[in-house]
Amino acid sequence: MKFRRSERLIDMTNYLLEHPRRLVPLTFFAERYSSAKSSISEDLAIIKETFEQRGIGTLKTVPGAAGGVKFFVKVKEEEVRPFIAHLCDLFRSPERLLPGGYLYMTDIISDPSIVNKVGRMFASAFSDIEIDVVMTVATKGIPLAYAVASQLNVPVVIVRRDSKVTEGSTVSINYVSGSTKRIQTMVLSKRSLAEGSKVLIVDDFMKAGGTVNGMISLLDEFNAHVAGIAVLVESENIEERLVDEYLSLIRLSDVDVKEKKIKVSEGNFFSMNVKNR
Amino acid sequence: MKFRRSERLIDMTNYLLEHPRRLVPLTFFAERYSSAKSSISEDLAIIKETFEQRGIGTLKTVPGAAGGVKFFVKVKEEEVRPFIAHLCDLFRSPERLLPGGYLYMTDIISDPSIVNKVGRMFASAFSDIEIDVVMTVATKGIPLAYAVASQLNVPVVIVRRDSKVTEGSTVSINYVSGSTKRIQTMVLSKRSLAEGSKVLIVDDFMKAGGTVNGMISLLDEFNAHVAGIAVLVESENIEERLVDEYLSLIRLSDVDVKEKKIKVSEGNFFSMNVKNR
Repeated sequence: MKFRRSERLIDMTNYLLEHPRRLVPLTFFAERYSSAKSSISEDLAIIKETFEQRGIGTLKTVPGAAGGVKFFVKVKEEEVRPFIAHLCDLFRSPERLLPGGYLYMTDIISDPSIVNKVGRMFASAFSDIEIDVVMTVATKGIPLAYAVASQLNVPVVIVRRDSKVTEGSTVSINYVSGSTKRIQTMVLSKRSLAEGSKVLIVDDFMKAGGTVNGMISLLDEFNAHVAGIAVLVESENIEERLVDEYLSLIRLSDVDVKEKKIKVSEGNFFSMNVKNR
Repeated sequence: MKFRRSERLIDMTNYLLEHPRRLVPLTFFAERYSSAKSSISEDLAIIKETFEQRGIGTLKTVPGAAGGVKFFVKVKEEEVRPFIAHLCDLFRSPERLLPGGYLYMTDIISDPSIVNKVGRMFASAFSDIEIDVVMTVATKGIPLAYAVASQLNVPVVIVRRDSKVTEGSTVSINYVSGSTKRIQTMVLSKRSLAEGSKVLIVDDFMKAGGTVNGMISLLDEFNAHVAGIAVLVESENIEERLVDEYLSLIRLSDVDVKEKKIKVSEGNFFSMNVKNR
């Protein structure tokens, strides 16, 4: 059965979007549609151009016999800026204020379309970095971690506060929370992280960075390396930041409980230069 | 700027995949590509045909002035069967056995491509059901819940074992775990679930169904309704099942610790008839 170009373009678009960062040989598509490799090459050129123009991503061609094509997410600044502005508006709502100056942000993180967009943006920022695994801590960071990992085509490793029988043997560390100075525990299943892994740490919220710092210490125990750090919200006005290089979408600068005012602004997404460590 | 048909097809495919179950007016696409509505209609006919042929999903047209098109995920049996067979193979590996006959399945759930596929299959099974929100319990069910919710275009509500200050005021219930008969607690943030919501309950593993049953009791407290239940793995040989109607991909029938044998088979995915309650 032969496929028309229009059908091929639709199916290839879906296939590439579902398989980011994976090498797809041209022969795979050629066989899938009983088409000549030259036609597939033309299709891919059209897809690449449209993906780039519409801020969907890009295709990279790997030449040679073992070659093929790889899809990478690449978002455009024109998409990120209004999205961050929209998120800032959401965060400014005074109803978020909880006793003690905490912010309710569960509704934001519970929306998969927001979470997936954040995932695409983080994956785009780290698209040129070698990453083997995304790490987060239970529970609020989990959705974001999966959204990023989906686009980077790597597994997710979840650090817990307590060990569970279904995790098998675990490695645990103690760390000092940055803002409350309390000693806390972090646990990671032994078989969940391979030695030498390059790890992207993802979390929803970072204050002084104690939790992120804890995850970095945990990586040491596994002889694994930090490839990058990305948080949705960072909190400003921190006396001593425990983490120096990280990416953030939003910066929370002030919470005035009395006046019910929440001050948020754009994070360092555009000023931060992500590079291989 | 005018767009060629090929570009439109690629961008529309991406747009529809990113916005499942959402009504997209034809005028939206017509303006986006400076094209006539008649051309857009032709494009959508091609996309619909290809989506259905390739097991991506389907498009439903809503006629009238407020009309448009909606994308629904619909997977084909030819895709589901080999995927379940592959999952069964993964589960059979004797290295999964943990002390006490527990199974290590974190590696399976940590793979976003598996999680996203399961999400598409659950969403496909419930595509004709009215669902307002997906509910799960922390922490292992979270990735699956988001994968389903992404395809159903609804938010995720996460039940916790303990209350946290960042959740605001909460409702908590006690329930009896089905297999260990212990009394446990479940907590849900008050503002996370609207009254009358139709809820799809999603979890990774179901033994007797105590946890799922706990979530159902919690729904009562919110005057919300169960729209469906979907689990990745169900355990067979349960004396008394607390939940009667549910969807499962995999059935775990026996774990022989001594012989290091794990018996798994296809769940009720194909025999279960999902309908509105």
